[in-house]
Amino acid sequence: MKLDKLVGERFKEKPADCVIDSQALMVRGGYIKYVSSGIYSSYHVLRRITRKIEQIIREEMDAVDGQEVSFPVVLPASLWMESGRYDSVGVELARFSDRNDNPMLIAMTHEEAAVQLVREYGNSYTRFPFMVYQIQTKYRGEARPKGGLMRVREFTMKDAYSFHASQEDFDGYYQRCHEAYMKIFARAGVPEVVPVFSDSGMMGGKVAHEYMLLSPVGEDTVVVCGECDYHANLEAAECIVANESAGPAEPLTLVETPGMKTIADVCDYLSAPVKKSCKAVIYQKKGGEYVVVFVRGDLEVNEIKLKNYLREDVFPAEVALGSGLCPGYIGPHELNGAEALLDSSLAGIESLVCGANKEGFHYTGFNAGRDCPGALYGDFAQVAEGGVCPSCKKESLAFARGLEVGHIFQLGIKYTKSMGMQFADKEGALHYPIMGCYGIGVGRLAASVCEARHDEYGPIWPMSIAPWQVHLCCVRSDDSASRDVADFLYAEFQKSGVEIVYDDRQVSAGVMFSDADLLGVPLRVVVSPRNLKEGVCELSARDKSYCKKIETVNIVKYVLDLINIHS
Amino acid sequence: MKLDKLVGERFKEKPADCVIDSQALMVRGGYIKYVSSGIYSSYHVLRRITRKIEQIIREEMDAVDGQEVSFPVVLPASLWMESGRYDSVGVELARFSDRNDNPMLIAMTHEEAAVQLVREYGNSYTRFPFMVYQIQTKYRGEARPKGGLMRVREFTMKDAYSFHASQEDFDGYYQRCHEAYMKIFARAGVPEVVPVFSDSGMMGGKVAHEYMLLSPVGEDTVVVCGECDYHANLEAAECIVANESAGPAEPLTLVETPGMKTIADVCDYLSAPVKKSCKAVIYQKKGGEYVVVFVRGDLEVNEIKLKNYLREDVFPAEVALGSGLCPGYIGPHELNGAEALLDSSLAGIESLVCGANKEGFHYTGFNAGRDCPGALYGDFAQVAEGGVCPSCKKESLAFARGLEVGHIFQLGIKYTKSMGMQFADKEGALHYPIMGCYGIGVGRLAASVCEARHDEYGPIWPMSIAPWQVHLCCVRSDDSASRDVADFLYAEFQKSGVEIVYDDRQVSAGVMFSDADLLGVPLRVVVSPRNLKEGVCELSARDKSYCKKIETVNIVKYVLDLINIHS
Repeated sequence: MKLDKLVGERFKEKPADCVIDSQALMVRGGYIKYVSSGIYSSYHVLRRITRKIEQIIREEMDAVDGQEVSFPVVLPASLWMESGRYDSVGVELARFSDRNDNPMLIAMTHEEAAVQLVREYGNSYTRFPFMVYQIQTKYRGEARPKGGLMRVREFTMKDAYSFHASQEDFDGYYQRCHEAYMKIFARAGVPEVVPVFSDSGMMGGKVAHEYMLLSPVGEDTVVVCGECDYHANLEAAECIVANESAGPAEPLTLVETPGMKTIADVCDYLSAPVKKSCKAVIYQKKGGEYVVVFVRGDLEVNEIKLKNYLREDVFPAEVALGSGLCPGYIGPHELNGAEALLDSSLAGIESLVCGANKEGFHYTGFNAGRDCPGALYGDFAQVAEGGVCPSCKKESLAFARGLEVGHIFQLGIKYTKSMGMQFADKEGALHYPIMGCYGIGVGRLAASVCEARHDEYGPIWPMSIAPWQVHLCCVRSDDSASRDVADFLYAEFQKSGVEIVYDDRQVSAGVMFSDADLLGVPLRVVVSPRNLKEGVCELSARDKSYCKKIETVNIVKYVLDLINIHS
Repeated sequence: MKLDKLVGERFKEKPADCVIDSQALMVRGGYIKYVSSGIYSSYHVLRRITRKIEQIIREEMDAVDGQEVSFPVVLPASLWMESGRYDSVGVELARFSDRNDNPMLIAMTHEEAAVQLVREYGNSYTRFPFMVYQIQTKYRGEARPKGGLMRVREFTMKDAYSFHASQEDFDGYYQRCHEAYMKIFARAGVPEVVPVFSDSGMMGGKVAHEYMLLSPVGEDTVVVCGECDYHANLEAAECIVANESAGPAEPLTLVETPGMKTIADVCDYLSAPVKKSCKAVIYQKKGGEYVVVFVRGDLEVNEIKLKNYLREDVFPAEVALGSGLCPGYIGPHELNGAEALLDSSLAGIESLVCGANKEGFHYTGFNAGRDCPGALYGDFAQVAEGGVCPSCKKESLAFARGLEVGHIFQLGIKYTKSMGMQFADKEGALHYPIMGCYGIGVGRLAASVCEARHDEYGPIWPMSIAPWQVHLCCVRSDDSASRDVADFLYAEFQKSGVEIVYDDRQVSAGVMFSDADLLGVPLRVVVSPRNLKEGVCELSARDKSYCKKIETVNIVKYVLDLINIHS
């Protein structure tokens, strides 16, 4: 198309409210238009990009036997009541009443709708496995939208749902989907995306992976091993500590620690290293019940790990008078009035300082194995930089920032069980199918590619998702010879099936080229009077890797070859 | 794909709750799944069809210089407050509050979002004309969803918005869009769709067309001329009556009509034909003000015509005591307490019976031109079957039923003015751009094609939107020779780029063929042991127009030729 017909404004100044480069470039280049917090319209340039991303996703989902379907955006609340999520999900779920006062919701994910679609179909083992997916708009009442398309309230997502009759079958399929995801990101121009072990959050299920583009502007912390390819998010990274035996076991001894309420104060007073103490962190459940997590004094509790363990929400506690708890002096030995959970950092370590559940007193010589028999252990502590890698066991963990561009979850039977979907096996016995779900945010992927592939002048779109393949500039379109050649090339490129945008405006070369940079089309062909004299045009790459003169008679063929190489 | 992997159930019995054939066939064939009143999920078969329809629409919109964009589904209420529609549209608009209690809505149409997208861009005459469109999900709180995808609450729609600097330019473009619409319907397999003059309802603007597929199950009444190609909906069809002069003018004479309140009673009593009377129909505006429409006694008022004339809502009146109105005796001469509107059927007719605005009295000899000078006339009466065609002027109007599959509207400056979008002309003077809007419901179009193209066994999809092009059946897949040939053909068809569904299940030929009928794929190829002996397969058309034997070695080429003819 001709550039002067393209709806959308391009400008030079970075908008003040843009916090990351991709956001600023997408606003400056006429890709997106702010409508409301976290809600954008897409101009044609971006729609061309997202359409290509959608097509890549579609092809890879079809290649793993996916069937494209369509679920409603608006669902009756009753469907989410079946799974229990109508009540368990908070204000991020948009709820409204229809004209007959029936409670409705705007779906932010479609596990329930997927089960509802196939509940009757999937009633026999002969029907399995199968996978359905859609590409559609979703709305989520995000608390702090920011970064343009990075964190929004409304977004287009590919969401897929698989159903298997056995965990074994499913494991193989999950791996195939993982590979399909890696292909999608590679084809979209970001092969550096890494799979990251993740917690599965509100989705239920156990195993999950996020796909992260490591980037300084990423919102997520990714735990990265410097020695192997281990990647996990903070919630999923197992915290491994090397506890050394402290020699002969000390006896549990009550000591007075008047007025000392923090573990640092107590350790200081007792001349014990913080590593040799046991810290209490107190939480409350929705009903008010206390949960105390004990962790080695130098570590911190990761609240999401705790929530995932408990499978319910918890909050930092406000300890009430008469609760039986003694804030500042809480310890695992003979604790009353609360559920006690011990982090695995407290296993195999002796002679710790800990609270004595008595105002003004601590213990020394605490040994969890001896003094808290039958205690519940779990992984509640957050990994630290320099910590032990759960995979290669070296002390090589570091933190990086990541942009999440996709995720896959093993859902188990959470939804099929709660919604009563069962199939009969060969013998007629009934089972719940095993589900997986697989998401990719289309707009966020576009923005992430821009974040990873841009310079100060604009995005550098990979050929596979670029809005056009070639950007043709006629500088001096007032020169009739130049114009004739450019018009001719425009027609020739179109005839050859090349996606081309043609700038024949009577503007300065500076304006022309800065606009071209903002559109980020991979190949640029420039026709100018000076080049014309030599019988050539200029061909350059948006990534500035080359700029060469090609004989005008050969340019179409030359460009076609380049496109084929890059596609 | 293989049919045994296709998610969705097919069955024989017509579901009790299905009111029209297309709905029953789409439920029976595994196309749609009921989720809630007027809300459906689409299975893969239907998604394949809607994807093709979307692509046809996209190509034709691009051909009239449309640029695909994307508007949000969820909009801030503030945007609709700018146009005034947040208040003027009723319960069919879904409203909700976000987590910060900001009022939001689920857009059922996107005029406001379109103006917001281009308001700054379109600030100079040099930018015009342009058109943007999207294909997206919408929700409308429809009162009585029914007929499957025919009348739903949630639907996928192509909605386009054009902006022009002058009415003259726009008129030409409106015609181009009309032609694009006719192409779309022809390509989708329903060339018999007719354009129908329509009122523009809540959209504002004056000229509008609906695209109707005439069908006995249509929900709309279409006024059709038997003599020319005039088509209009009831609200838009001008009512033309031939009034004959009644000879010498009678004087206006007060006559006593005790206890007679209906025009029929009065005419009977005075021995006047109903055609020679003037009937009063009383409405009230929201604020309670009375509006009386006078119409020739044999005609009826069309309430939508009245609303469009007034540009506000009216309701049948409840006349209060002390209003000054005299129900049963209301007439246009010296009427007090109400706004009077005269239907054009009262022009050029003399000596009518009408109410005298006095309990128990009527006039005879009424002559609107003489007795109500300065009265407001308009077209408020509903056309009747056998009425005069506004186009060819013959008494040839008839009523038909139609399914609306698209509509186009001239919006004028309703939205650009209310939302403050202006452009500067060459001299720097400011003007409001002229808008048009253009909608097609994708799901309804699919259902309408099914309604127009089916038999008792299933849909008969046109090649252009069929879920697959070829349906390959291996009857007796337990016969290894048959199976080998069918497998081979399946691979060959795929290699040739044919979209093929392959049924190799071990089921009876009856089940196989009734399933094929429900999927409605245009071409069917049957491999069976009997045919194999003769070295042929059976090729048949879904519309049952032929069934012939083709040598197996030639079948792929033969089918490819057929597909090319039909595409």
